[in-house]
Amino acid sequence: MNPSETVLRFGQRHLLGMAKLQPFEIENLLDLAEREIATSRRDDKKKSVLKGRTQINLFFEASTRTQASFELAGKRLGADVMNMSVGNSSVKKGETLIDTAMTLNAMHPDILVVRHHAAGAVALLAQKVGCSVVNAGDGAHEHPTQALLDALTIRRRKGRIAGLTVAICGDVLHSRVARSNIIALNALGARVRVVGPSTLLPAGIEDMSVEVFRRMDEGIADADVVMMLRLQRERMAGAFVPSVREYFRYFGLDEAKLKRAKPDALVMHPGPMNRGVEIASDVADGPQSVIEEQVEMGVAVRMAVMQALLPSQELAA
Amino acid sequence: MNPSETVLRFGQRHLLGMAKLQPFEIENLLDLAEREIATSRRDDKKKSVLKGRTQINLFFEASTRTQASFELAGKRLGADVMNMSVGNSSVKKGETLIDTAMTLNAMHPDILVVRHHAAGAVALLAQKVGCSVVNAGDGAHEHPTQALLDALTIRRRKGRIAGLTVAICGDVLHSRVARSNIIALNALGARVRVVGPSTLLPAGIEDMSVEVFRRMDEGIADADVVMMLRLQRERMAGAFVPSVREYFRYFGLDEAKLKRAKPDALVMHPGPMNRGVEIASDVADGPQSVIEEQVEMGVAVRMAVMQALLPSQELAA
Amino acid sequence: MNPSETVLRFGQRHLLGMAKLQPFEIENLLDLAEREIATSRRDDKKKSVLKGRTQINLFFEASTRTQASFELAGKRLGADVMNMSVGNSSVKKGETLIDTAMTLNAMHPDILVVRHHAAGAVALLAQKVGCSVVNAGDGAHEHPTQALLDALTIRRRKGRIAGLTVAICGDVLHSRVARSNIIALNALGARVRVVGPSTLLPAGIEDMSVEVFRRMDEGIADADVVMMLRLQRERMAGAFVPSVREYFRYFGLDEAKLKRAKPDALVMHPGPMNRGVEIASDVADGPQSVIEEQVEMGVAVRMAVMQALLPSQELAA
Repeated sequence: MNPSETVLRFGQRHLLGMAKLQPFEIENLLDLAEREIATSRRDDKKKSVLKGRTQINLFFEASTRTQASFELAGKRLGADVMNMSVGNSSVKKGETLIDTAMTLNAMHPDILVVRHHAAGAVALLAQKVGCSVVNAGDGAHEHPTQALLDALTIRRRKGRIAGLTVAICGDVLHSRVARSNIIALNALGARVRVVGPSTLLPAGIEDMSVEVFRRMDEGIADADVVMMLRLQRERMAGAFVPSVREYFRYFGLDEAKLKRAKPDALVMHPGPMNRGVEIASDVADGPQSVIEEQVEMGVAVRMAVMQALLPSQELAA
Repeated sequence: MNPSETVLRFGQRHLLGMAKLQPFEIENLLDLAEREIATSRRDDKKKSVLKGRTQINLFFEASTRTQASFELAGKRLGADVMNMSVGNSSVKKGETLIDTAMTLNAMHPDILVVRHHAAGAVALLAQKVGCSVVNAGDGAHEHPTQALLDALTIRRRKGRIAGLTVAICGDVLHSRVARSNIIALNALGARVRVVGPSTLLPAGIEDMSVEVFRRMDEGIADADVVMMLRLQRERMAGAFVPSVREYFRYFGLDEAKLKRAKPDALVMHPGPMNRGVEIASDVADGPQSVIEEQVEMGVAVRMAVMQALLPSQELAA
Repeated sequence: MNPSETVLRFGQRHLLGMAKLQPFEIENLLDLAEREIATSRRDDKKKSVLKGRTQINLFFEASTRTQASFELAGKRLGADVMNMSVGNSSVKKGETLIDTAMTLNAMHPDILVVRHHAAGAVALLAQKVGCSVVNAGDGAHEHPTQALLDALTIRRRKGRIAGLTVAICGDVLHSRVARSNIIALNALGARVRVVGPSTLLPAGIEDMSVEVFRRMDEGIADADVVMMLRLQRERMAGAFVPSVREYFRYFGLDEAKLKRAKPDALVMHPGPMNRGVEIASDVADGPQSVIEEQVEMGVAVRMAVMQALLPSQELAA
């Protein structure tokens, strides 16, 4: 199968969430991403696939790594990339989200990469514009490219995803990373567990086809993948009970807890890490950690997503 | 007439204000911009006209849309574009405006796009540097590319500018958009009105060849174009009398007031809009609104201006 | 000698400080930079030497001029340049310096340009990443590209560096510029003096092969080059005794003091200047000043450094 065939089988105009993708679409994106890994490892990382295209990164929430990953992905594909962060934006002058979107749309971008603090804001924006939209994280809702890069990392290390046991641990309540991963991993046939204190598990989480654990030793037991979540301290308004030290004792991943998982279990984290809070440094830097590989896969996955969206847009037109 | 002919007839090195341009120069810039509209509508928006040139956007005041418009214009022409916003700048360390300009000048930009909060600052800077300078707004003085994009929008919709009645409404006092438009529209043969409360009309405005109205129903009557201004609330230091609600009642553009204008009158706004303050949402989004088209024309006009300035600089050398 | 020969004789992977360079390496970099001056003076400033390479400017301290200089240098060499300033960064979310470095490293940059407020931070970071690192200033430690651009400016104006008397004046204590210049100028055979009040001279400065003066008239006497330092007021926590007026009286460079130097002495300043504090305006703008030339040389030197580092990295691999 050649690259263009893969692309043609991706029928979406936007990437708003994993919930909208069929399993074969996910697999196709991962296949395409796999081919792009080599691009970033070369001296000459520049392709011309998106030459003359305009990509705008519209970030209503600051994010070093995600924005950087999208920026490098776009530049390496040959696109012109423009960053717009909200600090400098008209939003401060009272302009609405939709007016901002319409204004940018009138400048004819080909792709808008959007992060917003409110769940659903990116989908709303996508209805209003004439270009492709990629959700780079909307509130506690979805972060689809993170789920794709996690799936790619697992698939490359384990050779498959179907049948694996993946434990997603920590602050599931506030985590769009958890939500997108639960959807994607289930679609690809994994057995998904969530592990965390009751106060950090969303009500009704059981309905998302996951097993729920409130103790780490049980939740991690015999897992193939231990995916730690960032403790979203900036999202917690006083309501969070245990101290950081206590949190680490019960839910932080250290060597002792990791022993409960399979001996070759992968340790993952979406970053940025709070070392000593949700993960011990020796585990983060240890032989089972694939945390840096996740970052590398992030660029490849974003290159794949943007290539897949742009041709499909033309077909749909 | 081919493109190079048009360019050669533009004899300016800088674009500091509409007041410096002859009517034929304005018309030539609009003709050149007209040809660039198609560039941004293509998939491949990249030209090589300014390849290898350096454009620096030096913004002493934050502005999403204007900076973005210049950035995209430059990138689509093939220039290397560098953004410098004052927040990160040496100005905070006590460096003077002129030292900042001289420093950038020593890095050999081809074009400096400058926004500054003080009227006249951009012209002062232009005297000190060896490259072309575009005024992207200086205090309450001028914003020439806004006037050009407004003229282009009107000309495309109405087929002409001469003889049209244009009502510029609202906070004329603080508005460089109003000033540049009054000059440009008069130069192109329009009949220009300004409409606003006495407290928001500058003293001596009558000398600018405008008719002055203090009531919206009279000012808008039979107008071909109703150009609303942003209420510059951030520039008003307590002095402003009416409440926002009262302002909207008397000077906000709603369906009822708009009925006084010609049935096919255009509704314009430079953005960002304060919906419900100077303009009602149903008018902003209604069939007579060309507000998004203004944004689109902005990119085309800036592409035209930068192309026109750079060759003229070589001729002048 | 052709350019590639020069490059091959540069055996370093990183540029962390002048202390690591042999005199012939410094001379080679200056030779290479000399050839790049013409690049920025052309209309078409774009080369393809670093096409497809990724340069990341990682600035933990804001700096207009240095970041701009590196950005333009990289873009003119054809690299894709990404700016990351700490204001938007994960560092605010508690991520460590090393985690930030590892994350960026996983995105496969070819070169990281790093400024950090702590001495030694850039060298630490360089040990952790797989790409070349350029120190763009680390605390009061080193700022090697500043020393290179100063050396280039002197060499072009005076035809040589060996045997010249260079007086470095002012706040030596807090100045990485002073440190890097002392090392570089000594390596190239100049006689180096430092001049300043005792409170602004580091303990043990005599061990760096400099003559120490505490009075300007003596320190400047018969100098070929008078290099003023920026008064780092933002680094002084109350400890600094004299008032700004008093500082200028004793240590500010004015016409009267400058008369003590040789009649054709060069006046230098790394910028941004505090006019009327460490330097009088008429001297800064006078015929002996080469302050703007320093800025121009900055771009050329950074183009040279990045070209020299990238091939050497391949040879080392």
